[in-house]
Amino acid sequence: MIDPSKKYFHCTDRERAIFEAGIKLGAIFHQYTGMPINESNKEDIEKTIEKSVKLQPFVNNIRVKISMKGQNGTSFNYNSLSGEMLDVELAVSYNGQEVKARMQYLQALNYPLMYLEE
Amino acid sequence: MIDPSKKYFHCTDRERAIFEAGIKLGAIFHQYTGMPINESNKEDIEKTIEKSVKLQPFVNNIRVKISMKGQNGTSFNYNSLSGEMLDVELAVSYNGQEVKARMQYLQALNYPLMYLEE
Amino acid sequence: MIDPSKKYFHCTDRERAIFEAGIKLGAIFHQYTGMPINESNKEDIEKTIEKSVKLQPFVNNIRVKISMKGQNGTSFNYNSLSGEMLDVELAVSYNGQEVKARMQYLQALNYPLMYLEE
Amino acid sequence: MIDPSKKYFHCTDRERAIFEAGIKLGAIFHQYTGMPINESNKEDIEKTIEKSVKLQPFVNNIRVKISMKGQNGTSFNYNSLSGEMLDVELAVSYNGQEVKARMQYLQALNYPLMYLEE
Repeated sequence: MIDPSKKYFHCTDRERAIFEAGIKLGAIFHQYTGMPINESNKEDIEKTIEKSVKLQPFVNNIRVKISMKGQNGTSFNYNSLSGEMLDVELAVSYNGQEVKARMQYLQALNYPLMYLEE
Repeated sequence: MIDPSKKYFHCTDRERAIFEAGIKLGAIFHQYTGMPINESNKEDIEKTIEKSVKLQPFVNNIRVKISMKGQNGTSFNYNSLSGEMLDVELAVSYNGQEVKARMQYLQALNYPLMYLEE
Repeated sequence: MIDPSKKYFHCTDRERAIFEAGIKLGAIFHQYTGMPINESNKEDIEKTIEKSVKLQPFVNNIRVKISMKGQNGTSFNYNSLSGEMLDVELAVSYNGQEVKARMQYLQALNYPLMYLEE
Repeated sequence: MIDPSKKYFHCTDRERAIFEAGIKLGAIFHQYTGMPINESNKEDIEKTIEKSVKLQPFVNNIRVKISMKGQNGTSFNYNSLSGEMLDVELAVSYNGQEVKARMQYLQALNYPLMYLEE
């Protein structure tokens, strides 16, 4: 992909890929949490997030897994998608430099951490 | 559907259906706008919103149409879903009382109006 | 307030007020959950939601209370605003008909219920 | 700030700062767009976003400016906050390495670009 925004950046190709990976993970958390979800539409939401993130610049690959383990049932048989439920593996590539990033809830931190895997 | 929250309400069945319809339309606007979208994932997003709203209480039927007419192209070949693009027809039913509601961008108001059709 | 959208509705004034109340509560849940929050900016968020909802049509009054009781601390000293934390009292008035609505997490339902108080 | 998540990362301090800057900008876009806004609560929203982003890890400084120039008025005297309106300057610092990032709508791209300034 040719980058129409190249001239606005002052960084290496790897740094650019890292920046873009951060953008996507921050976006996923704040866009999709809140969606009504239960086992019946879980896979559908996973696929829709994947397709939608792939439209964003420099995304090579993405895998979204949602786990509802440990969620208490509600009286209305669905929950709201929360950061704890999300496990996202993301590969971003800029000019041949690929980075792998992840969002995953970590019990030790009680926090949905976004980090660089490689 | 038996209503586990019945005792909290002081209103007629039709009023309840109207209240629930309002909730769903307000939720749709504020949950899904912002999603990356172009023609390639438009239908996918429509279906995912429909499935997800159907999990919410007392939704009988929902049809979501997204139109990207009049949207200016961006340098990155996608847009963010906005209220102007959304056309939603919603049927909510409470204890046999059905109401039909709609969200639709109206040029005359320059506003994505949520209204009761019947 | 004169209603520029009057002709699109087919309902009583009270039904309209109820519909508008539903819209606002659905909107609040799906717009503001996800915001980074701790005790230091809790009141600030409450006030900002109140001001922002007051811009929407036919809102007479709104009071937002956020409670972080029962939230587990994270390693980064803030949480994400969730539906469980929100307690909203809302008065909507249409053509002299006022309705009072509320959003409140109810333990008995494990659900942030939106309901009509009067 | 001591970093409780240090062991999950495999990158330089500068790369970490860049990643964190991307997260914050992606988050801002997808969390706050959609909020009801007009001139009366514009400054309030700017301050609330600033305070709220400052809770997130490694944020040194943030300035949010919202411009409603070029927005068409609606029949209800407010708009929804959109990416086009946002101008954000962000300084993130990790272990002494500071990076400056920005989100700004660029007419040439018809896109709210997130980029690294230095």
